Amino acid sequence: MSWDSEFEKAFNPRAVAFVGVSRNSVGGTYTFFPAANGFMVRMMERGYEGRVYPINPGQGEVAGLKVYPDLKSLPEAVDLVVVCVPAKAVPSVLEDSIAAGAKNIHIYTAGFEETGLQEGKRLAGEVREIVERGGLRVIGPNCMGLYVPGTKVSMWPEADSKGGHVAFVSQSGRLAQDYAEYAQHRGIGFSKSISFGNGYGIRECDFLEYLTGDPDTRVIGMYLEGLSDGQRFVKTVKGLNRVKPVVVWKSGLTDAGSQAARSHTGSMAGQEKVWNAFYRQTGAIPVASLEEMADAHLALLNLPPPKGRRVAHFGVGGGSSVASADIYARAGFAVPKLSEDTRNELRRFIAPAGTSVRNPLDISGVMRDTDTVKRTLEKVAADPVVDIIVIAQHWLMVWFTQGKVVPTLAEYLTEFVRENRYGKPLVAVTRNWTEQQEGRGWIMELDRALLAAGIPTYPTEERAASALSKYVGYYEFLDRG
Amino acid sequence: MSWDSEFEKAFNPRAVAFVGVSRNSVGGTYTFFPAANGFMVRMMERGYEGRVYPINPGQGEVAGLKVYPDLKSLPEAVDLVVVCVPAKAVPSVLEDSIAAGAKNIHIYTAGFEETGLQEGKRLAGEVREIVERGGLRVIGPNCMGLYVPGTKVSMWPEADSKGGHVAFVSQSGRLAQDYAEYAQHRGIGFSKSISFGNGYGIRECDFLEYLTGDPDTRVIGMYLEGLSDGQRFVKTVKGLNRVKPVVVWKSGLTDAGSQAARSHTGSMAGQEKVWNAFYRQTGAIPVASLEEMADAHLALLNLPPPKGRRVAHFGVGGGSSVASADIYARAGFAVPKLSEDTRNELRRFIAPAGTSVRNPLDISGVMRDTDTVKRTLEKVAADPVVDIIVIAQHWLMVWFTQGKVVPTLAEYLTEFVRENRYGKPLVAVTRNWTEQQEGRGWIMELDRALLAAGIPTYPTEERAASALSKYVGYYEFLDRG
Repeated sequence: MSWDSEFEKAFNPRAVAFVGVSRNSVGGTYTFFPAANGFMVRMMERGYEGRVYPINPGQGEVAGLKVYPDLKSLPEAVDLVVVCVPAKAVPSVLEDSIAAGAKNIHIYTAGFEETGLQEGKRLAGEVREIVERGGLRVIGPNCMGLYVPGTKVSMWPEADSKGGHVAFVSQSGRLAQDYAEYAQHRGIGFSKSISFGNGYGIRECDFLEYLTGDPDTRVIGMYLEGLSDGQRFVKTVKGLNRVKPVVVWKSGLTDAGSQAARSHTGSMAGQEKVWNAFYRQTGAIPVASLEEMADAHLALLNLPPPKGRRVAHFGVGGGSSVASADIYARAGFAVPKLSEDTRNELRRFIAPAGTSVRNPLDISGVMRDTDTVKRTLEKVAADPVVDIIVIAQHWLMVWFTQGKVVPTLAEYLTEFVRENRYGKPLVAVTRNWTEQQEGRGWIMELDRALLAAGIPTYPTEERAASALSKYVGYYEFLDRG
Repeated sequence: MSWDSEFEKAFNPRAVAFVGVSRNSVGGTYTFFPAANGFMVRMMERGYEGRVYPINPGQGEVAGLKVYPDLKSLPEAVDLVVVCVPAKAVPSVLEDSIAAGAKNIHIYTAGFEETGLQEGKRLAGEVREIVERGGLRVIGPNCMGLYVPGTKVSMWPEADSKGGHVAFVSQSGRLAQDYAEYAQHRGIGFSKSISFGNGYGIRECDFLEYLTGDPDTRVIGMYLEGLSDGQRFVKTVKGLNRVKPVVVWKSGLTDAGSQAARSHTGSMAGQEKVWNAFYRQTGAIPVASLEEMADAHLALLNLPPPKGRRVAHFGVGGGSSVASADIYARAGFAVPKLSEDTRNELRRFIAPAGTSVRNPLDISGVMRDTDTVKRTLEKVAADPVVDIIVIAQHWLMVWFTQGKVVPTLAEYLTEFVRENRYGKPLVAVTRNWTEQQEGRGWIMELDRALLAAGIPTYPTEERAASALSKYVGYYEFLDRG
């Protein structure tokens, strides 16, 4: 199968049918079964404005909507059919779809090849045959389908409906949902997220081809276990990654992971060295967890292209500065001494006792005075030896001693990044340890303010360093041509 | 200098003098200056029951206590003198200490060799001479001194006073304080934490010698930039690590870090390969951040010696299981298929649809039924192919769907670990993403319950895998003899 632009209607459907809705449960945000009810009700709760048709062989109403016995009885050909009936009933629903002229289909149902059972394999063959014969545009089976916040095609329970510019393409439905949930707490929104499961119809490369030209999408994320067509994948990612960064979480790379993959999606997971070659060749960015995915996405979404790998670091205390310098150095960065001019200018308003203006900068006392922060940051950003700025303060301490300064600081950083006079990327480290509710709330607020301003924030120095390295590495790859 | 057991009185002093208290400020929990006032008042606030003497050349009272003009005027020889006067006044305070017979001294004051200035070097020489001549037992200068929760010698603002079994020895005062603060949120308590700064008197090896025999200390942590005596350090750690695990954060290993170290404690940080040899030779456990330190300490404090590197993993969803298998495999673990007997027994009460009992176990639905959890965990723990158990659930989802089950599960896990019938270590991964206050609170509560029961909890799979690998590696080193 190749990308069929007619499938795009599924992202913004005028009408959706849910096949397999039960009349005994109206579902609800955290009701998972029966699945069709949950999907349908959640989508309506989120404010989907198109027409919704529950399908069930019986009669009556569900959630205030008339129940139709099958797709053929609907008053229109819907733009998306969500199939939640048991596996053995899936073929007949697909036949109905053909008959009803509804060709965009999400098969949620599991129970095909991934079971390893004869019956599952037989059903898979039948489904593939009908899909091909009917020209159906299918995602799934065994998947969570679509999540398109902008059009409220948003059946997943955990995620909110704020849109954004990341597209996520996943072979795992659970991880796609987890990422939709987790990413929102990191200030990352989605153009669309797609869980395609067994992928008997539209698959990873099809979606990537579409995303290359999707104006809502600026950065890509993928979770993969196996591939249907390795060569096509390399070619597609190679092209796409030049236009939009592609972050790939290929799991099942180890022997243990590969064995686990076989019983999950039935995929034969590939060997680590093959995939290392893939990353080298395409410039795609490898990650291995949700957290690493979000860390990389944050930097790629928000930061301007970097000029180099020289970090200026605003830390707290001598020991922590030494340790931070180690962390950034190990991630491939330089932490150069600021130029003499800069140091001299900083010394005009920063007293030497207990401070360092060498880099890492240890001027935590100064963070309590917004004007001095501004002057310092301006001087450091202007220094030609600096490419990237990291602000890693002990925010809780700043807050306890000088609470009101923190929102002002956040505001100033926001302004600094908006103006971006020097075009230098800036990130913050906002460790939030405390279990004390007020303090934790403060730092969460700071975090939200910075993220809203397009300042990536990281919970540890290691994660900031690792994400920055991926982001710089992406642009280095582009520069090599 | 070598360890002088007379210094032990400083950990449990009958009387403490604070030299350099100002009569203009009574200090307070988050008042940092003048330092002596802060130290003194915080220690009293924490409930220190010994005698406290503020020292200032003037007359009158501070915080309800009579001010004495100098150490010689005190009615007794105190067990600990905390020196906060400016650097140039330190020599005369030391002379007074000799005269007054008070030999355990914490010099908080900075401004010696670390300044790189001639005057600082001269004063350092003078201090060293007096220390030697007077047989003074000095920690510092340029340090935060002692934190001994059990005896309320606890002048640091951020940490609470709950004791425990980790001893931390640090060249950085800020990081020692940060660790005291952070560790408490991870369920780690201290026997003592020691910030020794420039170390003109008692230093790292002296403390390590003492800690070898300290009954309150079971696990050691160190933050180091430079060493006074490399050979002695290797020998001391080699001996100590056989008795109590030593976790070492040596910073300044990279060029960038090493340059930063020079302007912090004036230490010449060593080269990475020399330190790698040190870790190989001594079996000490290397870490590079506060988080990694706590992660390792948690495992070493709580887990019984492991029998091997075979992990049984309780996860959520197929994709996440594949990814987790990768994570543990990369950290040097096996994730073996459970033995046939175990799988057959589990299949008697766990339905096949949407579950896996192969390992990683994907039975998140089962987590909602405490009895089934018990039966499952018992069977898995009894399986001879399993050495270590990791419980990585989507706790928030469990809670939203079946809230009341979570405390019951925590209780069951607590009981399971207390009985420890199979002697197999168990850890939990308790990712806490949500900003929703109630949900976050629930998971924090679960975390606290598990930590209180001696179950290490980790915020990500990677950190659990990395900590487990350090813990197993420690015992593997011991086994190699």
